[in-house]
This record gives sequence, structure tokens and C-alpha cells, in this order.
Amino acid sequence: SRRLLSLFLGLFQGALLLFFALFVTYGEPSAQEKNASMVANKVYSTFPFFQDIQVMLVVGLGLLLTFLPLYGLSALTHNFLLLNFSMQWALVLQGLLHHFHHGQVQLDLHKLLISEFAAVTVLISVGAILGRTSPCQLLVMATCEIPIYLASEWVIINCLGVLDVGGTITIHVFSCYFGLGVSKALFRARQQPLHPKETPTPRSDLMSLVGMLILWVFWPSFVAVLCQPGDAQHRAILNTLLAMSAGAITTVVASSLLEGDGKLSPGHLQNGSLAGGVVIGAVADMAMPPVAALALGSLSALACILGFRFLTPLLERKLALLDQCGIHNLHGLPGTLGAAASAVAILVAPKDTSGSHFSQQALHQMGGLAVAVGVSLLGGLLTGATLQLPSLAQPPERLCFDDSLYFKIQDQAENPGPDNTTEEGALALKE
Amino acid sequence: SRRLLSLFLGLFQGALLLFFALFVTYGEPSAQEKNASMVANKVYSTFPFFQDIQVMLVVGLGLLLTFLPLYGLSALTHNFLLLNFSMQWALVLQGLLHHFHHGQVQLDLHKLLISEFAAVTVLISVGAILGRTSPCQLLVMATCEIPIYLASEWVIINCLGVLDVGGTITIHVFSCYFGLGVSKALFRARQQPLHPKETPTPRSDLMSLVGMLILWVFWPSFVAVLCQPGDAQHRAILNTLLAMSAGAITTVVASSLLEGDGKLSPGHLQNGSLAGGVVIGAVADMAMPPVAALALGSLSALACILGFRFLTPLLERKLALLDQCGIHNLHGLPGTLGAAASAVAILVAPKDTSGSHFSQQALHQMGGLAVAVGVSLLGGLLTGATLQLPSLAQPPERLCFDDSLYFKIQDQAENPGPDNTTEEGALALKE
Amino acid sequence: SRRLLSLFLGLFQGALLLFFALFVTYGEPSAQEKNASMVANKVYSTFPFFQDIQVMLVVGLGLLLTFLPLYGLSALTHNFLLLNFSMQWALVLQGLLHHFHHGQVQLDLHKLLISEFAAVTVLISVGAILGRTSPCQLLVMATCEIPIYLASEWVIINCLGVLDVGGTITIHVFSCYFGLGVSKALFRARQQPLHPKETPTPRSDLMSLVGMLILWVFWPSFVAVLCQPGDAQHRAILNTLLAMSAGAITTVVASSLLEGDGKLSPGHLQNGSLAGGVVIGAVADMAMPPVAALALGSLSALACILGFRFLTPLLERKLALLDQCGIHNLHGLPGTLGAAASAVAILVAPKDTSGSHFSQQALHQMGGLAVAVGVSLLGGLLTGATLQLPSLAQPPERLCFDDSLYFKIQDQAENPGPDNTTEEGALALKE
Repeated sequence: SRRLLSLFLGLFQGALLLFFALFVTYGEPSAQEKNASMVANKVYSTFPFFQDIQVMLVVGLGLLLTFLPLYGLSALTHNFLLLNFSMQWALVLQGLLHHFHHGQVQLDLHKLLISEFAAVTVLISVGAILGRTSPCQLLVMATCEIPIYLASEWVIINCLGVLDVGGTITIHVFSCYFGLGVSKALFRARQQPLHPKETPTPRSDLMSLVGMLILWVFWPSFVAVLCQPGDAQHRAILNTLLAMSAGAITTVVASSLLEGDGKLSPGHLQNGSLAGGVVIGAVADMAMPPVAALALGSLSALACILGFRFLTPLLERKLALLDQCGIHNLHGLPGTLGAAASAVAILVAPKDTSGSHFSQQALHQMGGLAVAVGVSLLGGLLTGATLQLPSLAQPPERLCFDDSLYFKIQDQAENPGPDNTTEEGALALKE
Repeated sequence: SRRLLSLFLGLFQGALLLFFALFVTYGEPSAQEKNASMVANKVYSTFPFFQDIQVMLVVGLGLLLTFLPLYGLSALTHNFLLLNFSMQWALVLQGLLHHFHHGQVQLDLHKLLISEFAAVTVLISVGAILGRTSPCQLLVMATCEIPIYLASEWVIINCLGVLDVGGTITIHVFSCYFGLGVSKALFRARQQPLHPKETPTPRSDLMSLVGMLILWVFWPSFVAVLCQPGDAQHRAILNTLLAMSAGAITTVVASSLLEGDGKLSPGHLQNGSLAGGVVIGAVADMAMPPVAALALGSLSALACILGFRFLTPLLERKLALLDQCGIHNLHGLPGTLGAAASAVAILVAPKDTSGSHFSQQALHQMGGLAVAVGVSLLGGLLTGATLQLPSLAQPPERLCFDDSLYFKIQDQAENPGPDNTTEEGALALKE
Repeated sequence: SRRLLSLFLGLFQGALLLFFALFVTYGEPSAQEKNASMVANKVYSTFPFFQDIQVMLVVGLGLLLTFLPLYGLSALTHNFLLLNFSMQWALVLQGLLHHFHHGQVQLDLHKLLISEFAAVTVLISVGAILGRTSPCQLLVMATCEIPIYLASEWVIINCLGVLDVGGTITIHVFSCYFGLGVSKALFRARQQPLHPKETPTPRSDLMSLVGMLILWVFWPSFVAVLCQPGDAQHRAILNTLLAMSAGAITTVVASSLLEGDGKLSPGHLQNGSLAGGVVIGAVADMAMPPVAALALGSLSALACILGFRFLTPLLERKLALLDQCGIHNLHGLPGTLGAAASAVAILVAPKDTSGSHFSQQALHQMGGLAVAVGVSLLGGLLTGATLQLPSLAQPPERLCFDDSLYFKIQDQAENPGPDNTTEEGALALKE
């Protein structure tokens, strides 16, 4: 089955080369100097945002997933592999669907960015089943999820005209319920027992916390990159900053109140602090007062923490639903909240410009939410059923959450020497 | 008292929401296309600097503080929480003080940036008392420090007209002596014994070193962000790069010479390499030859290392002054040096343009230094006295420097298995 | 000999100060407003790229080298020290050679960037001898390598007119063979036995993987920073992204196929994923179809993995050549491939503009490759012979790969307490 992974990826790269050879070009170089300067300006205005988003996805999200102490290499690597695979796959599909004019696809930074956004959905969905799945299963999941996402996004944005500049509905809600659907179909009614290797250590929590901080810092770039330059983009940046700042403080308050002894839970911090970025995506560039961004950030962090405390255990008990990273709390609840907030923001917006159709647009926002939830759940369930194919090599329970299944790790432990000279030893002295 | 933290933060968020609801707006969207393009240009010229500074404060400074091996989660989290709290608090106060025109505060990226600069002072001051204080104490400290900083900064910049584009005097000197004042008043004459958990391990030193490197890389953005675009900003970037590069090499020389066996001290590296960035702030955009930046960088790194080697033990012995992270060496000494350098730079500057008043301006620079030291020491001592309130839950000595006091850490250690299979074990084999 | 390090660095800093005091200035401030705006635009268009490259070299490359589990502090610090030293040294030499007009060197961001590129060669070459050399040896190596690099680069770019915007030939090929030459001359025929401390642990592999990801994300900035703004730069960014993405996937395929049990090797991932960035440098801004970037990225990753699997063991056995980090696989093979690709790309380019001289330019590309290999091997061998000087304090075999030789590490291990309470203990329970 490891051969299968290589075969699958190798064939995909071959097909990609063929597709690029036949159809993809760069645009004609712009002859006039004025155009060259326009291209340069476009690069300078997009590229820094693009790099920020790359850091988020490759480094930030990768580190966030290393909270499983023996699964860090796998988490980082699978995240990295899936990002590249999904991005290329989305590039091909979007080339086929949208940009196929005159037999050619003209590649530019904007198209790569759009493909990267598509890949984000896969990276989020993985959170539901992290550690209990093989790379083959994840690649098949990505293969299914990207076209379903593109269809769903096309319906939501192009048919319904939903406003969602930061991907709250199209990306976060979609990928959450897709991941949960996959998890449900893949693990069925079997409730997964607590695995001895899935409990974070302080050190793995620290790495994960660093990942959260990287995501937190660069999130405004993610929300604002596709905004209209000027006031709208400026507002999107400010709204995201405010929402994330309020969310961070609310997370501390809520986590500390909900835990019995008033201590903070690292898992709450790693997720709740980012909820503000999820909720704000749909309304970031709208004309709403700054207080709304603060309130939304606080509310979403609260929803996220409450979800971890009450909803996740409930879903696990009642529905036997596995949600390893709690993506429903970080993406599902805040995403739904954000969709509702966008409808409200449209309804109460000052109607000075084109006063009509506001209530209709608000309905469309909720329609978009319904489409995202419906399509993703259905698609996820079907995809999850596919992942049960035995050839995809789902790891046995006792080998879950363990890098040594996928990585050649030199075992040095044969002659360990006197253990009491380790630096760790001394730290064991916790009073 | 944990309830107190939640209560305090919760009330603050509520008050913030109220303040924003009543007074804060975004500016009117600019109707003309020309204005939109101006806004876009302003965003593009500020936002990358802003993001660099966010990375410095959230990730870099956070990691720098993780040198305490069992206190990493707390260091990262408290730094993150304080940044958000102080930034919001500064936003409110600055809104009330400076920007309150016609009953409204118009929020923009520049105002957020100014508030972030205010928050930096808190993050630096914390270094003096890191690990021996509760989050409640730190929040109360932030509550006191921000208004005192704003007052001090207003006197220094607006009344005295001090030139200090990179915050050498207003931020670094102020926050250092504020932190030392707090430490003195809080811990009084009790000399703190060496705590078994405050010694770094190679691994925690490595994380801290990564934090230093992140700060080192992005420091030019911190110094240059508020400069006049064009030559002044260009010069500020170059001067900072030169000072930090010279400081890095001088740190290695000095640390290696001062330690008996010629080995480097990780603590020296983590601090000395950054001293060049502190010293250069006050002179970065002035017309001085590049060699001055190199010399200042070298001198400040030397002062920092000498401070760690001789001054800190002396202050601890004579004044029973606790300075956990050595902020006096990284911020106090280089900051004072930078203030003096700015006076000298003004005095020796070529007097071709407006030849008079130079000696007066130099005096003002020294006056600004005096104000920063005086106000901060006084404010710090008063604040430190407040922090002794028993309800603020200062941790008992034996629970200092320990994440388990503030974080829910799953204890896995019940059935550890044969220890000689750990990867650590093998590494114990140091010959 | 530790004294020697301080003496050497101290004298160098003194000489640098003297050189700067005598010869280096900033350009005259631009009087007209138009010029100021031009300077500002130049800063905004270069500075973000420059910062990205700094992150790559200081944080990314530093972390990549921490795969040696007990040598992390040294790897990070030596990398940081060498970057600063080499950059300053290159600044001096380039000032003397190229920019010495009217007795003055006018410093600007572009010149610093060029010096940083020179410093990169040293950081790469170090990879061949990492862990078995003292800082003194590394500094002497840097002292020799920078002038040889500048001479080689001058011949390749200015005399031969080689096109190499991303430094494939001038930087990667040169530094690889220079490092191998040093290694050969320094360690002669003695084959180095496997040292017990040179085997990575999962944790050190994780840190190294994070370093790789940081390099991966920011590599497009490295390749594109010196391109002509506009279409060429846009194309360079896209080509680099495509090559690195294809390289990442091919690495997984190749590594998984070549290892007997189908597991991935962390070392392969850490290197192979970056091979696409090395290969693309020479052709990134040329007019070639996007498929070529994909194909080159795949090929170079394949070459890199095959090199690790077959060539490195062969070189070690037959030539007793030590290549600690496998720089021949990451820089030598993909660099050579990139040079060949640039010749081919020039030959097959559409000849619409100035149809002649294409075959001559292709020859020049191969000539540049020959110069880079020849000069670097010769220079490296001579430099390596110099490094054998006993005063340079090469560490004895048993103290290689150990931070405690260079760092003051507090040994806490005297009273370690009951080891079965460590968090690590529990994780040892691998079924």
C-alpha cells in the first residue's frame, strides 16, 4: 500500500506535467513600459499577502497540528504534502473549469492564490481524522474534496452572489462539515477509545501554541488578500485584527471559567484564539462599526470554548462522532456565526446607496450557508465511505498517532546509558 | 483569585465593547478614486512593517521568554494575553486623550500601530518579574503602566520635542526602569534564592535562541515603521541592520572573553545580539555616518554583556534587585547609551540647514532620558506596591516557574513504561 | 584557541570600523520630493524581499541545521555568526572592488543584499563539515571563501555574461564544491566513523523540518529579488513556486520508493523539498513554459534523493569524502542540472527578438558552470589545507556534535529525582 502512495502521487505528477505541457502558459510579456509597471505594482500588492498565507498554511498550521507528541513529523509532513497536492489539483480543475479560453490557461499569481484557498479546505478537514488515517486515505480525500469544494464555491459565490471575502462560509463551514462527514462515514458507530498517544505533552503543546501564534499574526492577510484595494482592504485588516484580539482575551476568560480549578487548557487557547479570524471572514469588508468586529470575535471565541467543553463530548457520546482537533468548534460554530452575522450586517447596513434588495441578499447569505453545510456533509459522507477501501491502508488502532509507522526513525535506544544524566531527569524534579 | 482574572478581563472586554460602540468608527469611505488609491498605497507601505512587528512581539518575544524550561506555555501565553490587553487598553486611552474629535475616534492602522508600541513597554517590563508573578498581577501592572507610559511619552515627544523614532528612550528606557521599580517594590529586600526550575536546559535555550533570531531579523521594521518614507526610512533600516550585525559579533567576542573557560553563554547571545536594535532607535534616521551605527551596535552589545557579568549580580547583592530576564542589560544600558548617542549625534551634525538650537535639542534629548527614568521608576515603585495585594495571588516560591500552576496539563506519568526506550535515554550517552 | 576566536573577531570588527569610518557613507539625501518618492518606492519594492531572505538564512537555515540532536545551539549560533561575519566581510571587499568611486562607498540596501548573497555561499559550504569543526576554522573558511566567491562571480557574470538570477551556478554550485573541497582537504583519507551523536532524534528532525518549511515558503523571494520588476519578476516567482511544489511531491514519491519498507526518511524530506528552489535559479526569469519549471523541480528532487541513497555512500566509500548535510545532493546535483537547463532553455527559446548568439550564450552558461566548479574545488582544497593549522582547534572526535564544547550549559543532572515522573517516560510506552 505504500507502493500505492508512490504510484498515486507519481501518476498525478505525470498527469500534471502533461496538462501543463498542453495547456498552461504565462501571459504574453507586456510590451509597453506602462504595463510592466502595472504588473510590478500588482506583484508588490499581492505577493506579501501571498507569502503571509504560505507561512500560515505551511508553518503555522503545520505546527498547530503537532500537539500529538509522537506524531509531529507526520502532522507537519502530511499537511505539507496535502497542501501541494491539493493546490496543484485545484489548479488543474480550475484551469479546466474557469480559465479555459482559446485552449489555454494563463497562469498568474492570482490563480495560484485561488488554488491555495481551495487547498485550505483539505487542510482543515484533515483535522477531524488526524492521526487515525494513512496518507493514502488523505490523498484520496483531497482528490474528492477539491472538486466538491469548487462546485460548492461556484454555486455559493457565482449563483447565489454570497459575499464572503474571507471564506467564512465557502472555506471554513464547508471544510468543517466535509471533515465531519468523512469522519462519520469512516469510523461509523465505533466510538474511538482514548489512545495513550493522543494526549499532548507540555512540549508538544508548546509547539502547537507557536503554530497558533503564527496563524494569529498572519490571519489578517488571509482575510484581506482578495479585498478591493483601498478602504475595503484597510477595513478588512482592521476588523480582523480587532476580532482576533477580542477573541484571544475572551478565550482566556472562558477557558479559565469553564475548567473546574480555573486553570487554562492549552487546547482551548490553541483554538479559541483563532475563532475571531474564522467568524470575521464574511463581514470583514462590509461597512459596519468596529464594535461589531470586537463583539463577533468575543462571541466566536466563546462559542468555540463552549463547543470544546460541552458539544464535542456530546457529539462523541451521542453520535459516536470523532473530531480529533475539534474542527467543529474552531471552524463550524464560528463559521455559522459568521454567516448569520453577515446576513444581519447586510440587513442593518445604512441603505444610502442602492436601498433595495438588502433582505434578499441576507437570504442569499443564509442560502449559501445551507448549500455549504449540505453539499459538504453529503460529499464528506460519500468520501468517507470511499476511504474504507482496504487498499488505502488505514492504520490499526495500536499504530495510530505514531510517526514510526510512516518515518524511518533511527532507534538509538539500544544502549541508553545511565538515564539519570539526562537533562530531562532534572526537570522531573517537580518539587 | 482565578475568578478574579476572569472577572477582571471580562469586565474589561465589556467596557471596551461599550467604548467602541459609543465612540469608535472607521473613517468615511473615500469617494474619489484618487483617495482610494492613496489609502491602498498607505496600507501597502505600512502593513508589511506592521506584520513584521506583530511577528516580533507575538512569536519572537514569546519564544525568547521560553528559556525557563517548565514555564514555556505560561511565558508564551502571558506575553500574548498582555499584548492584546495592553493594546486594547492603549487604544482606549489614546482615543480618549488624543484622537477625540467631534465625539468620535476614527480608527486606522496607524492608531493600532501606536497602541501596539505602547503595549511593547508592558511586554518588556514583565521580563523583570517573569515567573514569580501571577497573571492577575501582570494585568494590574499593564493597567497601571499604559497610562503612565502615555503620559511620559507625551511629555517626552510633544513637550520636549525629543527625537526618538525607534523608541529607545520612550519605550526601552521607560519600560526597563518601570519593570525594575515594580520588581523592587514587589519583592522588597527579600533576596530571591536560585530556584531549581529557573535554570535553562539546552532545549529551552534553543527555543529562546530561535525567538532572539526572529526578533533580530524583524527589528529594522520596528525602528523604521514610523520614519518619514524615503531617505530617512532607508537610512533607519540600514543603520539598524548595521548596528544589529555589529552587535551580534561583539556579543560573541565579549561573551567568550568574559566566561572563564572561553565558552559562550546562551543567555548572553539571547540578549546581547539584540542590544544593537535598542541603542539605534534614537538615532536611526539622523544624518550620521554608517560607522556610527556599527560603533553603537558594538558598544551596546558590550555594555549588555558586561551588565550581565558584573552589574546584575551587583544589583542583586547590594539592592536585592530581582531582574529575571536581565532587562536592565538589554534595555536599560543600551537605551541610556542610545539617548546619549542621540545628543552627541545632534551636536556634531553638520549645521548646514538651520544652524541654531542644536545644543538645545541635545539637552532636550538628555531631558527626555531623565523624564523616562524618573517617571518610570516612580510609577514602577507605586505599581509594584499595588501588586502586593493578597487577592492578586502571587504564586508561592515553590510553585514559581511552573506551567502546572496555570495550565491543565495531562499527567501521563502514571505508567511510564521502561524508561530505557526513550529517545532521550540514548542521548544521555554523552561519552 | 578560544582566545584566538575573540582576537580574530575583535580585530575584524576594529578593521571594519576603520574601513567604514574612512570610506563608507550614505548617499546624499535627495533634495527633490520626486526623488524621495522614488527612494521610498525602491525601499518598498526591495525591503519585503530582503526580510524574507533574512528569515530564510537566520531562522530557516539555522533550524534546518539543528537535526543534530545535541548540537542545536552550536548550529544556530555558528550559522548566525557566520552570516554576520561573511556579510560584513563581503561588504568590505565589494566596497573595495566594485563601488570605490571618488574614495567613497555609498551604502544602500541593494549593496547589503548583494553582500548577503555572498554570505550564503559560506552558510551552504559549512554543511559539508558541520559538527566536526571549530568556530575558528569556520571563520577562517569564511575569510577565504568570500574573496574567492567574489572573483568567481565576477568572472561568471561580468566576463562570461552568464544568466543566473537566482544564483544556481554562482551560489549553489560554487558553495557546494567549495565545501566538498574543504572537507576533502581537511579530513583527507581518514574515513569518519559514525558518531553516536550524529543520529537525529524525532525531535531534532522536527525542528529541522520546520526550518525546511520556512526555507520552502520564502525561497521565491530569494530567486526573484534581483529580477527586473514586472513580468520577469512575476515569472520568476511563479516558476519557483511551481518547481518547489513539484519537488515536494516528487520527494515523497522517491523517498518512499527507495527506502526498503516504504517509509519516508526525514533527511530526504528536509533536503529534497528544497531542490526545486536550487535548480530553478538559473532559468526562473527566462521565457519558458510553466511545464518546464514543474519538470525541473521534479527532476531535481529525484536527483537529490538518488544522490542521498546512492551517491553519498559511494563518495564516502571510494573517496572518503565527508558531506555531513549532503550538500552535494541539495546544491551540487540540482545546481548542475539547473545550469544545463539554462543552456537548453536558451537554445530552444523562441528566437523572435535578436535571433543570433543563442548557441554562444548557451555555451557561456556551461562555461560558467565549469568556472564555478573549478574555482570552488581548487579554492576549497587550499582553504581546507589551511584549516588543518593546529591553532584553529579542530575538536577531537569524541567531542564532535556536542554543544557543551562551545556553550556554558548548566548541568542540572545532579539530583534528577525519580525518572518515572518525566513526561517523556509515558511516551516511551510505544505499545
